[in-house]
Amino acid sequence: MGYTESFEPAMRLALAAAAEATGTGPEENQDVPVGAVILDAAGTVIARARNRREIDRDPTAHAEIVAIRQAARALGSWRLTGLTLVVTLEPCTMCAGAVTAARLARLVYGAEDPKAGAVGSLSGRSCRRARADSGKLACGGVA
Amino acid sequence: MGYTESFEPAMRLALAAAAEATGTGPEENQDVPVGAVILDAAGTVIARARNRREIDRDPTAHAEIVAIRQAARALGSWRLTGLTLVVTLEPCTMCAGAVTAARLARLVYGAEDPKAGAVGSLSGRSCRRARADSGKLACGGVA
Repeated sequence: MGYTESFEPAMRLALAAAAEATGTGPEENQDVPVGAVILDAAGTVIARARNRREIDRDPTAHAEIVAIRQAARALGSWRLTGLTLVVTLEPCTMCAGAVTAARLARLVYGAEDPKAGAVGSLSGRSCRRARADSGKLACGGVA
Repeated sequence: MGYTESFEPAMRLALAAAAEATGTGPEENQDVPVGAVILDAAGTVIARARNRREIDRDPTAHAEIVAIRQAARALGSWRLTGLTLVVTLEPCTMCAGAVTAARLARLVYGAEDPKAGAVGSLSGRSCRRARADSGKLACGGVA
């Protein structure tokens, strides 16, 4: 199994989490379907979340941020050193910055986001910083 | 009173919030002193927060993110349209992205952060996006 294929099970979990964002309930509570999981070095799932911006009425509740906060609670530390974030959509600027802030070792994303993607699509500073800081960033086209 | 001076009372509140980050308690719970407040169009304080990364063990708990979440709870909406974020230190990439994600109208910050500041100091994509999206961004040197 190749490097890219090794993230397929986690990406499937992330896609399942994304699907929950457009579930039952009033339309105004339905979120854009984005899902994320965080894996430890052994591949164990530490966190699993979906975009909750509408349902939580929280502009920071993108799937990545929710998953990062969940992983930090699970580990009892803000440093997510050695962990991998797998997310269905290319992160925005806020979430790309959070990857760096949380010291994540690796980012794997599915679809590119030409409008708001801050890792590759906009070739932003956040991406270069994330790459420089982690030295292990994996990008795009995995889903 | 000039435009810059009009934010001085809010910056003083933000500085007071920052000071709480290095209060009593064990050293490992002491945070880098950064404070933030959010004002509505009339200048009323909607949220007031300080950096809580260490004490909450949450890599996303920068003062700006905590204040943004607090304001969203207070308003019952993730859209912070028309509001102003006043923060003692130039925001990092994550927080600059959150300013855009939350639809804040204006950002006012105190000290520049040559290492991690993502608004002016690194001239990052997040800054240009924030400027383009809001059209009203105020930057730096206010404290």
